[in-house]
Amino acid sequence: MPNRRFAVADAPTPDHHVDATDDTLHYRWDNAIDPVCTVDPGTVIVFDCRDAYDGQVTPPATVKDLLAVDADGHPLTGPVAVEGATAGDTLVVDLLAFEHEGWGVTAVPSGDREAGLLPDRFRDAHVREWDLDTRRDGTPVATFVDDDAPDVAVPIAPFPGNLGIAPGEDGAHSTIPPRNVGGNVDVKHLTAGSRLYLPVEAAGALFSIGDCHAAQGDGEVCLTGIEAPMSVTVRLDVVSDRPVDGPEFETTGPFTPSGHDEEMYATTGIEPDLMDATRAAIDRMIDHLHERRGFDPVDAYVLCSAAVDLKISQVVDAPNWTVTAYLPESVLSAPE
Amino acid sequence: MPNRRFAVADAPTPDHHVDATDDTLHYRWDNAIDPVCTVDPGTVIVFDCRDAYDGQVTPPATVKDLLAVDADGHPLTGPVAVEGATAGDTLVVDLLAFEHEGWGVTAVPSGDREAGLLPDRFRDAHVREWDLDTRRDGTPVATFVDDDAPDVAVPIAPFPGNLGIAPGEDGAHSTIPPRNVGGNVDVKHLTAGSRLYLPVEAAGALFSIGDCHAAQGDGEVCLTGIEAPMSVTVRLDVVSDRPVDGPEFETTGPFTPSGHDEEMYATTGIEPDLMDATRAAIDRMIDHLHERRGFDPVDAYVLCSAAVDLKISQVVDAPNWTVTAYLPESVLSAPE
Repeated sequence: MPNRRFAVADAPTPDHHVDATDDTLHYRWDNAIDPVCTVDPGTVIVFDCRDAYDGQVTPPATVKDLLAVDADGHPLTGPVAVEGATAGDTLVVDLLAFEHEGWGVTAVPSGDREAGLLPDRFRDAHVREWDLDTRRDGTPVATFVDDDAPDVAVPIAPFPGNLGIAPGEDGAHSTIPPRNVGGNVDVKHLTAGSRLYLPVEAAGALFSIGDCHAAQGDGEVCLTGIEAPMSVTVRLDVVSDRPVDGPEFETTGPFTPSGHDEEMYATTGIEPDLMDATRAAIDRMIDHLHERRGFDPVDAYVLCSAAVDLKISQVVDAPNWTVTAYLPESVLSAPE
Repeated sequence: MPNRRFAVADAPTPDHHVDATDDTLHYRWDNAIDPVCTVDPGTVIVFDCRDAYDGQVTPPATVKDLLAVDADGHPLTGPVAVEGATAGDTLVVDLLAFEHEGWGVTAVPSGDREAGLLPDRFRDAHVREWDLDTRRDGTPVATFVDDDAPDVAVPIAPFPGNLGIAPGEDGAHSTIPPRNVGGNVDVKHLTAGSRLYLPVEAAGALFSIGDCHAAQGDGEVCLTGIEAPMSVTVRLDVVSDRPVDGPEFETTGPFTPSGHDEEMYATTGIEPDLMDATRAAIDRMIDHLHERRGFDPVDAYVLCSAAVDLKISQVVDAPNWTVTAYLPESVLSAPE
């Protein structure tokens, strides 16, 4: 299937394959969960990952489906133990390949849940389904499926929203907040070719992965990226001479949709609190998309979550900080 | 002087030139300051801008100079009034050209001032002088002057740290915090070719500019970018049919030092407060530069302020947010 696979040029043949089944899925981080297998350092493994809604919001995706979701945590595939990994070591995760299934969804939760960056502005649940395909020029892009949705084309750059290892602290831990051992970090630059370092706390490290996104803006402001089921190929290694105390990684981006400088429209938030500045920047970007580009505000919110990046421009000009939101003009062009 | 000028391809001949003199410099925002001139909409003006230290820390830049700085606010050149601009209009500022003088400084303030992102970690004032010149391959880069400083090459991408218009509220306002009428926004992407929109509050708008940087990382974490005196060419226009309520702008970056995807090393901060997450990400980047790349920690702090970018990866996975710091590997290569 062309353009559903995103891989480093020299992606090796996997040694193991972990399916997504009742036996391999878990919905909490817990160092007491038995590993699905134990592998030698350097092993290459394919993980089948369900989407964040655990297969409950599939094409044709509807708000009714979204409101009926019965889930308590992200479905994570694993854990896989790495032979010899012990607390104080560093797990090295090479992200080698991603393969999606041609569809994704972005959803705005009901404002009653108080989730997402702007729950007060967006009170009603909303779902948009994306087609993940290829533009005539060969660019893999996500486009809205519904006829009443705006024409946008968001380049696909798959990554796992949630990947990490078991916390050292005993007990069951929610999959929602990320931690120093990783988890729901939602860093959009953990693309194929990236290398992630995580601090091992539990014997065997106990690596799991899920919640893949076909694309996302820095911030993931409406709560979801382009959520999609995927298979992810990783190499797991362990080193003892390179300690980290939180996730660190090497990446080559993409840092813009095209991979090179291109035209952006930017809105600033200038406030004494960084979260308030973030809200102001995104509020203004939604206003821009609504007032000048003809978007319905909730679809503008969805587009911000899928394609608008958030930078901290300055954190030193007390008492007001600057957060800036960047919209690539190229995503507003209709796909061809 | 080759490569000291950074301009859009079709930069027009200026109509006016505002020198930096006692008559044209001011150190507060105040709508009662008489304009140095009143221009028609569409006028192209060159502003001579002193560096942020008002010419008190010049080559050879020393800590003694820094500690002796007698300043109360940024030296801003202006204001220039635009004929017909009234409250509710939008000032349109086209940034057309920058010309520097071949040198810049980045300084860490004394920790006693409680300024910068990490005053508790860095208690002693520190100054590094930069040479602004051209690498053998033609790339304009900033390099440290001192023999004991690390080999780095930060691509030059000039912008004004502080540009804005008079607040509607009467009285003298500090130049340190940015506001919705602009000022010390410190947005690194306001480079030549960018177009800035500002909400007019005072009659004539009263535009001023200063505090130019040869380069800066998103965040400006040690309090200063590469501070440099410059001349800046802008076109000022005014429109009444495109309201904004804070700074918005169009830009083409650069979004990476090379203008295209390149290798980055990234550290995360994962905390329930965005400022704490920012501190954690930068603390770890300084540790990385110190432990693995041989930097003295304070020079690592300086490099972060000049070349490391800060992104808000996610603000929705309560209660922990992810802020990520990105170091372009290319700036660590010795200049040739």
